[in-house]
Amino acid sequence: MALGTAPGAARGAQIASLGHYLPEAVVSTEEVAGRLGIDPEWVVARTGIRERRQAAKDETVVDLATAAATHALAGLDADPRFSGAASLVDTVIVATSTPESTMPSVAARVAARTGLGHPAAFDLNAACAGFCHGLATADGLVRSGTSRGVLVIGADKATAWLDWDDRDTAILFGDGAGAAVVLPHDRRAIGPVVWGSVGEESHLISIGEEDRVLRQQGRTVYRWATGLGDTVARVCERAGVEPGGLAAFVPHQANLRIVNALAKHLGVAGDAVATDVVGSGNTIAATIPLALSRMRHRPNLANGGDVLLFGFGAGLSYAGQVVTLPPLPTACPVGGAAGTAWGEFRDVR
Amino acid sequence: MALGTAPGAARGAQIASLGHYLPEAVVSTEEVAGRLGIDPEWVVARTGIRERRQAAKDETVVDLATAAATHALAGLDADPRFSGAASLVDTVIVATSTPESTMPSVAARVAARTGLGHPAAFDLNAACAGFCHGLATADGLVRSGTSRGVLVIGADKATAWLDWDDRDTAILFGDGAGAAVVLPHDRRAIGPVVWGSVGEESHLISIGEEDRVLRQQGRTVYRWATGLGDTVARVCERAGVEPGGLAAFVPHQANLRIVNALAKHLGVAGDAVATDVVGSGNTIAATIPLALSRMRHRPNLANGGDVLLFGFGAGLSYAGQVVTLPPLPTACPVGGAAGTAWGEFRDVR
Repeated sequence: MALGTAPGAARGAQIASLGHYLPEAVVSTEEVAGRLGIDPEWVVARTGIRERRQAAKDETVVDLATAAATHALAGLDADPRFSGAASLVDTVIVATSTPESTMPSVAARVAARTGLGHPAAFDLNAACAGFCHGLATADGLVRSGTSRGVLVIGADKATAWLDWDDRDTAILFGDGAGAAVVLPHDRRAIGPVVWGSVGEESHLISIGEEDRVLRQQGRTVYRWATGLGDTVARVCERAGVEPGGLAAFVPHQANLRIVNALAKHLGVAGDAVATDVVGSGNTIAATIPLALSRMRHRPNLANGGDVLLFGFGAGLSYAGQVVTLPPLPTACPVGGAAGTAWGEFRDVR
Repeated sequence: MALGTAPGAARGAQIASLGHYLPEAVVSTEEVAGRLGIDPEWVVARTGIRERRQAAKDETVVDLATAAATHALAGLDADPRFSGAASLVDTVIVATSTPESTMPSVAARVAARTGLGHPAAFDLNAACAGFCHGLATADGLVRSGTSRGVLVIGADKATAWLDWDDRDTAILFGDGAGAAVVLPHDRRAIGPVVWGSVGEESHLISIGEEDRVLRQQGRTVYRWATGLGDTVARVCERAGVEPGGLAAFVPHQANLRIVNALAKHLGVAGDAVATDVVGSGNTIAATIPLALSRMRHRPNLANGGDVLLFGFGAGLSYAGQVVTLPPLPTACPVGGAAGTAWGEFRDVR
């Protein structure tokens, strides 16, 4: 009854390239607050959000995801260390909870539009924690030898599900997408995931079955999120990484006050903390890859390093892992210095 | 930059228990055909479907999934070989494309309602191929040491998205759920997955973005599905299993003629072929675990053996793998004969 030998599994997986996309239209907090008849500075003080992007009416989650994926694949293609590696992407995972339709999957359409051939493709839904769930899944698929390369995308069009008269949500959300190409590596550069759910609190953030409007009990969610510090610290422990040694901390961008509370608990501060929420709002599953891709060229990340990702949201669900990014190709001297060179990409089969 | 040592990964994963649920209300093909003004015998000749179940109006996908999961967990609990193993289920995956709402995930709610504590929980969408995608994901998560045990559920309430006046779909779909508990094993009892997508044909089966009605171009889909024989055969090749040696073949239950065409191409016939579609219709992601759970006590499966699963549908997406089932506990003599004993369950950490 043996099922043949296992295909060659990789010892580890890595994020080899990142990409992102933001729609063109900027919606300022002045505009949203004006519509609600509230003070925009009160909104900024409470959330940190100054503006967010809104996708065009005919711009779909498939469009957002495809744009971010195209960016990530272009980056991979331009990186001599990963020459030819795009052809190894045999799996596409799109983390989303705002697809225009649940059939067919967003992922199958993105796969076709990015010219990846006919890969395995599926959508994954863990709301705002979706990207980190997708990354853990990609890591497991690569390390088990199930997949050779995985394109993981977080993409959401939150504004299509908003009640613009609901001040608990209208001030918070925006549209966007981020993507990561996950490839085999000779050591683990995507660390152990810490993930879980608190389903008995699932009513706190939801899209209505009848009215299809996104609602949340903001205060309760805020208390839960700001109390996740020990869980975030556990992600570092699982990875064997000291918070003080992190090149960056990229928590889900729901609210700047939550970001700062978690960063403070962890003891990470300053430029290392992602604050993308200020200009993008809460883009649900997109926030983490979007923020990470946008901060990738900062001095503290250009040379690579350990980055702590942590997603949380509806479910309630959470997931986090430490990823070790290679130096940017431009930051890496040709030939590489022994101490900083990133291992060559090698197909494991 | 090392991320610590990898946790102990399992050499293989297995389906340790199965469960299913069908709603109470039976809808006969006579009734559906009568509403459409067509001959019920023509429907049966064309599809094989004699009846299907319809969930109550207030019975949700969460309810269907929870019922199937509860059945699978009860089976696990009753099996002395897996004593205490339910406590190891740390991940819940629900394959569905008909959730009442996309936020929160169905999985987080099912996790809470099945008393599994606070596991990782996410939904996965690859339409009718969703369960096999979920099973491949579970296998990868267990073999990579990311998860210790995974509850994989396929659950859909297709009837909530039907136009009962559309003869291309009204005659085909029903509601249901199936579930499998995946645990570590000392060898691979979930074989290599063969999966992919044909996104450029994604328009062939879809739920309308505006009208939210499930539609498909039946003839074209039929031609694609009946042409998948070589892909199905490749699943056996990857597993190193001869089709003639299969204890069962469980393809997606879309239409009895597709089932029979694939079985004929493969050279598997008679009792070994799942024909659950006759009494359940097409229950989307539920068909495969539902059919497998329902045929588990047949003589050809009670002693265990190799079973070929193959899902296909909207996306277009497909996924398949050979799973090796243990003998039923009642079919397994106490102590077990050396030739048929199923390896003891051992936690790998």
